Amino acid sequence: MAENGGRRRPTIKDVAAVAGVSRGTVSRVLNGGHWVSPDALAAVNAAIRSTGYAANRHARSLVTGRSNSVAFLLTEPHQLLFEDPNFAVLLRGAADALAKLDMPLLLMVAGTAEERRRVTEYVTAGHVDGVLLISSHRDNQVVASLLHEQVPMVACGTPLGYEGKVAHVAADDVAGAREMVRHLLDRGRRHVATITGPLDTPGGVLRLQGYRDELGDSYDEELVAHGDYTRASGQRAMAELLDRRPDLDAVFVASDLMAAGALTTLAARGLAVPGDVAVGGFDDSGLAATVQPPLTTMRQPLERISAEMVRLLNEVINGQQPAAVTYPTTLIARSST
Amino acid sequence: MAENGGRRRPTIKDVAAVAGVSRGTVSRVLNGGHWVSPDALAAVNAAIRSTGYAANRHARSLVTGRSNSVAFLLTEPHQLLFEDPNFAVLLRGAADALAKLDMPLLLMVAGTAEERRRVTEYVTAGHVDGVLLISSHRDNQVVASLLHEQVPMVACGTPLGYEGKVAHVAADDVAGAREMVRHLLDRGRRHVATITGPLDTPGGVLRLQGYRDELGDSYDEELVAHGDYTRASGQRAMAELLDRRPDLDAVFVASDLMAAGALTTLAARGLAVPGDVAVGGFDDSGLAATVQPPLTTMRQPLERISAEMVRLLNEVINGQQPAAVTYPTTLIARSST
Repeated sequence: MAENGGRRRPTIKDVAAVAGVSRGTVSRVLNGGHWVSPDALAAVNAAIRSTGYAANRHARSLVTGRSNSVAFLLTEPHQLLFEDPNFAVLLRGAADALAKLDMPLLLMVAGTAEERRRVTEYVTAGHVDGVLLISSHRDNQVVASLLHEQVPMVACGTPLGYEGKVAHVAADDVAGAREMVRHLLDRGRRHVATITGPLDTPGGVLRLQGYRDELGDSYDEELVAHGDYTRASGQRAMAELLDRRPDLDAVFVASDLMAAGALTTLAARGLAVPGDVAVGGFDDSGLAATVQPPLTTMRQPLERISAEMVRLLNEVINGQQPAAVTYPTTLIARSST
Repeated sequence: MAENGGRRRPTIKDVAAVAGVSRGTVSRVLNGGHWVSPDALAAVNAAIRSTGYAANRHARSLVTGRSNSVAFLLTEPHQLLFEDPNFAVLLRGAADALAKLDMPLLLMVAGTAEERRRVTEYVTAGHVDGVLLISSHRDNQVVASLLHEQVPMVACGTPLGYEGKVAHVAADDVAGAREMVRHLLDRGRRHVATITGPLDTPGGVLRLQGYRDELGDSYDEELVAHGDYTRASGQRAMAELLDRRPDLDAVFVASDLMAAGALTTLAARGLAVPGDVAVGGFDDSGLAATVQPPLTTMRQPLERISAEMVRLLNEVINGQQPAAVTYPTTLIARSST
C-alpha cells in the first residue's frame, strides 16, 4: 500500500502493545473475533488502524488462504432489494457487525438461475470466506452448490430443505403469526383472512402455519391468498380475497410491504381501516409507521438477526458445527387494527 | 463443480463448434468481449452455457490471474443506496451488461474512510478485475489508492481531481442544467433559484456551472442553496431559499430526489407548483413521474451510461487507455413547470 511504502511493517506485537492486550488476543481478532470481549475487540481494531497493521492483511490472506470478507447474498430479483426495506436494515446491520471485525461486505444479488451460477462460481473460487444467505427459497440450488463446496454459510430464516445442515438465524415466525391472529380475534374480528408470502420461503410457510394453528377448526381456505413479498402482490391478493369473501373483517399480511399494497386496494374499494377491515403486518421494517393508517405489525429484531448471522458465520468459518438461533417477535400496535 | 464431475471437460473448441464461430472469437469473448459483434457474443455465451464450459472458469482464472468479476463501488452512505432510485437503475444496467459477459457483479458500499480502506484492500488483493466507481467525491482516496495499485476503473460522472487519468461516462451536466434554466426562463420566470448537489461532486459543480452560464449577468448568489443529494437536504435547502428570497418563482434542483424534498417544503408553505414556484429536477429516475405534481426534469440515459461503463471497463482491463464518454440529456416536461 502506498502510505506504508517507506516504513517498517507493523507486526502483531506492535498492535498488541498499542492495544494493551496479548498477542493471542490480536490473533483471535484477526481470525474472526472469536472469544474476544467487545472492549478488547474495539481496542485491537483501533490499534490495527493506528499502527497501519491493516496493510499486512493482503499478505496474511495469502498465508491463511482467506479473503477476510463475506458476501451478503440475496437470492431475489434486483428490484426487491430496493422495494423491500427489510433488506436495507439487514444489510446495514451486517455491514456494522462486519466493520467491527474489520471485514468489508460484498453484496451479491442472484435472482435468476444464471446469476446464481455466476455467484456460486465466484464464491467457490475463494474470493469470500463465507456467505450470509438472505431470502432463501426451498431447495435453493446455490445452497446445494455451496454446501457441496463446503463454503461456510448462515441463512436468514429457516433454510427449507437444508434444515440442520445450514446455520440460521430467524424470528419465531409461527409464534409471531399466532400472536397477530390472536390480536385480531381479540379485537372482535370474525373473518380473519391472510395474505401469505411465497410458499417456498420460511416466512411464507411458517407464518401461514401460525395463522392456521391459531384459528384451529375455524380455518377456511377461502380466506387465504398468496403474494410474493412485492407491494403489487399484496394489492392483487387483497382484491382476490375481497372478491371471494366480501364478509372478511380482518387480514393478517405476512410482510409490511405486501400490507402496504393491501391498504391501497382497501382504500380503492372505499373500505375503512380498521373500521371495515383491520390489517396486521409482519416486520416493522420502517415502512409500517409511514403508511396510512400506520400499521399494526409484528416486529422482527432485524439488526439483532444480522449481527447474530455475522457472529455465527465466523463460528462456522472457524470450524464449528452450524447452530440455529430463533428470536421472539413483538406486537407493535398502531392504528390499523 | 459438482454437476460436471463425471464428464469430459468441454474445451474452447467445443464452444466454438456449438456457437459456429472461430476459437479466436471464443477467446476474445472470454477475455472481455472486445472486438466481438453482439450476435457472436450472444452465440458464444449460449454455447458456453449449453456445453457447460463455464465450469472451467475457475481453472482459467488461476491461469489468467483474473477473477472474472467487477465491483460496483458506491462511495456514499448506505442509506443513499436505498433512498436515491438512480443507483438502482445504474446497478441494474451494470448487472445486465455484465451478465452478457458472464460476469457476476459485486456491490460494495464505502461511505466512511474505514469502509473505503477495507474496500481498497479487498480490491487490490485481486478479488475483482476492475471497479465501476459510482458517485465519486473530489480527491476520493479510494481513487488514489486504486490508481496507485493500477486497478482498472471507470467512473460514473467526471472524476474530479483525476480527470484524464480515470475513464468515465457522464451525462452532459453543464448543457443539461443550461437547458433546464432556459426552459424556466422561457416560461416567464424572473427569479430562478437553484439547489445544487455537494460541490465536491461533478453533478454538484457542473450543474451549478450550467445554471450560472445560462443566467449570465443576472446570476445572484442569494438564489443558490446546497444539498447533499438526500431528500431531507432538498427540503432544507428549499426552506433556506424561501426564507432568503420570498420573491423566487422557480427553482432548478440538481437531482429528482432533492426536488421531491423541495416539493414537500413548498406544499408545507402553501405555495402552488407551478403557480407560485416552478420546479425543475435532474435525472428522470423513476421518482420524477410519481411525485405530486409530476416533475419536469432532465433525463439522464442511466441504462446507457452503466452499459457503456462496463464496456469501457473491459477496455481498460484489456490494457487500453482511459476514454471519456459524454451523453446528452433530454428535457422531459411534466406539470411542475
